[in-house]
Amino acid sequence: MKHSPALARLIDALHALPGIGPKTAQRMAFRLLQDGREGARELSSAITGALGAVGRCTRCRMLTEGELCLVCASPQRDSALLCVVESPADVVAVEASASFRGRYFVLMGHLSPLDGIGPEQLGLAQFEQLLVAGEVREVILATNPTVEGEATAHFLSGLAQKHGLRATRIAHGVPIGGELEYVDGGTLAHALQGRQSVF
Amino acid sequence: MKHSPALARLIDALHALPGIGPKTAQRMAFRLLQDGREGARELSSAITGALGAVGRCTRCRMLTEGELCLVCASPQRDSALLCVVESPADVVAVEASASFRGRYFVLMGHLSPLDGIGPEQLGLAQFEQLLVAGEVREVILATNPTVEGEATAHFLSGLAQKHGLRATRIAHGVPIGGELEYVDGGTLAHALQGRQSVF
Repeated sequence: MKHSPALARLIDALHALPGIGPKTAQRMAFRLLQDGREGARELSSAITGALGAVGRCTRCRMLTEGELCLVCASPQRDSALLCVVESPADVVAVEASASFRGRYFVLMGHLSPLDGIGPEQLGLAQFEQLLVAGEVREVILATNPTVEGEATAHFLSGLAQKHGLRATRIAHGVPIGGELEYVDGGTLAHALQGRQSVF
Repeated sequence: MKHSPALARLIDALHALPGIGPKTAQRMAFRLLQDGREGARELSSAITGALGAVGRCTRCRMLTEGELCLVCASPQRDSALLCVVESPADVVAVEASASFRGRYFVLMGHLSPLDGIGPEQLGLAQFEQLLVAGEVREVILATNPTVEGEATAHFLSGLAQKHGLRATRIAHGVPIGGELEYVDGGTLAHALQGRQSVF
């Protein structure tokens, strides 16, 4: 069934959201126009508002409304530890683990030469400035354990080495609460390779 | 981790979409503000555009941009068959089956007295006008096979009877391509009850 132009345009725009297929987009569009008109107005205005208000932290590239993000602005965080992640969602995930008191650097992606994403797009000049500034002692590489994430981590470790800093990679292994039976071979290989003495 | 106000507002607005949890909403918000700013502007503007342009068909209550929806405007559809569905998505689903050449009436919901949804909210006065007009011969009740959908179908069949029209309910049973083993008891009971002779 052919949708009318304004409806088709709305469905296309919703379909462009991550993880939204054409059928879900259609369902959302109908809901927004049917009994969700109040929510639709709010969504449209929230998007416009956020586009205007939210920029990047000048220090770590995290999404923020001010000059500095909350982590960079806090005097209680340990500037000696710099955790490098691929995306703002990764910062949220690490913060949720309540196990890190250092600061972050958000790459907003990973090295991917074929897509034209090199050191410049990831703000690595800015990253090196942080390293040069002298506060950082250890660079924790928390990029994703994918081919691109590993390549990026490798590249960043080179930069850390160049500036005489320690670089560490987060551990890969069997997730807590997971069962060995259902863990993939690559993860098990990492878990065996990274085994630690228990006494 | 606390989000900044504009970001939190955007996440809340996305979270209000059907089927979107808080984590998906966050992922969408980050994407929109990160490398999807073009798409974000388009989405905001598509919502505003659709809110302004899309209204309801004056005849069948389907979402449409004109006075009449495409089905009601088409002279090739059979006005003797009136298929009553709960939502615009149901019209799209029936149309996709390419098995119906009549017209529709879209309730935009189902009877639900506890939520204050009665005959008025479902436009049943308009529905009766269609029945009175004399073109309709058969009312096909295609509301969902839920408690509310069945109650609504029952109520509508009473209206059809009042106007001396035939009312039919779509068949319930085992879905094509499904396996009996995985079909729930209620559906199997309907399938047995609705059995038809094969010769």
